[in-house]
Amino acid sequence: MSKLSRPILGVLGGGQLARMLAIAAAPLGIKTIAVDGSDEACAGQVAPLVVAGWDDRDALQAFAGQVDAITFDFENVPAETADRLAEQVRVAPVPSALAIAQDRLAEKTLFRECGLGTPEFATVDTREQLDQALAKVGAPAILKTRRLGYDGKGQFRIKSLADADAAWSALGEQAHVHGLILEAFVPFDRELSVIAVRGRDGDFRTWPLTQNWHVDGVLSMSLAPAFDIEQLQQRATELARTLAERLDYVGVFALELFVKDGELLGNEMAPRVHNSGHWTIEGAHTSQFENHVRAVLGLPLGDTGARGLSVMFNWIGEMPDAAPLLRTIDGHWHDYGKQARPGRKVGHATVCADAAAVLASRLDTIGQALGRQAQVQPVLDVLITR
Amino acid sequence: MSKLSRPILGVLGGGQLARMLAIAAAPLGIKTIAVDGSDEACAGQVAPLVVAGWDDRDALQAFAGQVDAITFDFENVPAETADRLAEQVRVAPVPSALAIAQDRLAEKTLFRECGLGTPEFATVDTREQLDQALAKVGAPAILKTRRLGYDGKGQFRIKSLADADAAWSALGEQAHVHGLILEAFVPFDRELSVIAVRGRDGDFRTWPLTQNWHVDGVLSMSLAPAFDIEQLQQRATELARTLAERLDYVGVFALELFVKDGELLGNEMAPRVHNSGHWTIEGAHTSQFENHVRAVLGLPLGDTGARGLSVMFNWIGEMPDAAPLLRTIDGHWHDYGKQARPGRKVGHATVCADAAAVLASRLDTIGQALGRQAQVQPVLDVLITR
Repeated sequence: MSKLSRPILGVLGGGQLARMLAIAAAPLGIKTIAVDGSDEACAGQVAPLVVAGWDDRDALQAFAGQVDAITFDFENVPAETADRLAEQVRVAPVPSALAIAQDRLAEKTLFRECGLGTPEFATVDTREQLDQALAKVGAPAILKTRRLGYDGKGQFRIKSLADADAAWSALGEQAHVHGLILEAFVPFDRELSVIAVRGRDGDFRTWPLTQNWHVDGVLSMSLAPAFDIEQLQQRATELARTLAERLDYVGVFALELFVKDGELLGNEMAPRVHNSGHWTIEGAHTSQFENHVRAVLGLPLGDTGARGLSVMFNWIGEMPDAAPLLRTIDGHWHDYGKQARPGRKVGHATVCADAAAVLASRLDTIGQALGRQAQVQPVLDVLITR
Repeated sequence: MSKLSRPILGVLGGGQLARMLAIAAAPLGIKTIAVDGSDEACAGQVAPLVVAGWDDRDALQAFAGQVDAITFDFENVPAETADRLAEQVRVAPVPSALAIAQDRLAEKTLFRECGLGTPEFATVDTREQLDQALAKVGAPAILKTRRLGYDGKGQFRIKSLADADAAWSALGEQAHVHGLILEAFVPFDRELSVIAVRGRDGDFRTWPLTQNWHVDGVLSMSLAPAFDIEQLQQRATELARTLAERLDYVGVFALELFVKDGELLGNEMAPRVHNSGHWTIEGAHTSQFENHVRAVLGLPLGDTGARGLSVMFNWIGEMPDAAPLLRTIDGHWHDYGKQARPGRKVGHATVCADAAAVLASRLDTIGQALGRQAQVQPVLDVLITR
């Protein structure tokens, strides 16, 4: 382990989250090294990159020897890999927390134990169990792999009981590999997320709740702080704190929530910095990336208060023209340096303002300039209620 | 030249300015490569570093072949080097602007041609000319090398005529190497600076005026926006624009100004991002680093408005304990990753707030926690007048 006064952070996974962690770590005087299976991983453009698979013991051991702590850009690192590294160097969050977040069944069970309701769910191991689960959960529902799903991948939406065969055709093969779970589809009023951080010393903070809009299972837009959240914020913070303490969690995590009739339901937990927290780079006193770095390395946490209002646009597939955003007051561009590919998260942008009307006007201008009126409309609908 | 849609920026010099340029370029999807004579140059921790001297033609030619534009972290790159690179790739600012800023005589002459008054001055080539210059300029005065001075280096303060021999002993040898200039010491009311940026298309912007405090010739603290600057801002912006247009300048530059009896006097010009503009990273809608990158690469400039009030602390010699600052709301830490060394700029910190009283309270707490009350006191004296 390095004994320098300036610690070195290791990150498992070299995608945009590792990239933004490295950019946030640099001003703190902290160097970052990422590990990824691909030599094209975009974190490699801003930090040294070790190209190695999760089963490459020698490479990972050498990597662990170069760093003071290890964290994750990717939650599906095999538990065995994380456990082995944790014998050599501090790993945060702890691999046991990672294991729970990797399994939708364990995650939802934990939510309920912590007092957070969830949509109805049932495990599915066979075609027959899918029928039983549908009888219990009802339709519409979503069949999901228990493990290794993200961004709507490994999911099949069952609109009526007649879709059961199609769902099994799509995902049945996964039943014995990753397990399946059937979840009731909740006709929610809003999707919110809370980004939380817990330090090594137990210091715990949440950023203001974020309202999120997804398209095809992938985050499209976020607004923060969400409106009308006073009571929900307190409840979300309590739940996140309970979860974090139960897991002895260190670092940032996200809790995706549904709001239905004023109540919070737990959708899923991401044991890492999260797409719905990207607005914190410019929109909060301390970003999720900086606080994650601080937490993992045992530094004091920074204030998580918002600076005005922020809206985040996700760029999926390819980067749009940057010019309209670059010309926007308090508009901030984030190009992850990736090659374009359908469905890929290639960048995001954040626009901040002190007043909802000003933010709406900036959003509207950008939406029109980029021909993305449909993407911004749901956020405009909320902003114009202020 | 790279023909990628994501351009590559080259920076001559690999110090903290190059480092912060690289950190600002990354979110724009822009890679940075720095050149420095030392393999320990701190920009090398965040970007690829080419280790080469300014006279290493082959290395610099290869470097120029890898990048889409070249700029400077260091204004004393030999004009010959800059000229040669400019034949191969776009260099901004233009080497002719650099040459003027490198020479205190040419710089002050230009200021006067642009309508900006300066302290009295006279060139000094011999011991006799020093006496003549002192007779013209009067004492107190400052004898400076015409070239290669910065941060109070290459300067001797003459308090009375009796100091002439000592001044000549200290700097006389430089008279035929870099030239000398005697400048009247101005008992100024305030030191201000204006950071300005001009795009390739002529778009011109200034950030709000910054008030600066120096200790032993080195910047110690900055406050931005400075107070009571309405008329001065307009005048400083006009002067900076005139200068920029005259030089066909592209990129960020700083104009250090004295305020005396409500009038602006030109002290010096820095043809690059500047220490007194570091507050713009968190305190403005677009930082000086990001706008410099945008200007040099021909992207639209971003808004230069302030977000609330900002104070910057310079850390000289060694980094203080980070904890008090990390615990401060809207406090931002910048460790350049350098080894400690007396007089060296090793980092800075910025604290922002919406109100002067809140900012004063945060400053006072940090000053006490770090035992640096003397460093913060001049800024507190200004803040408590609000």
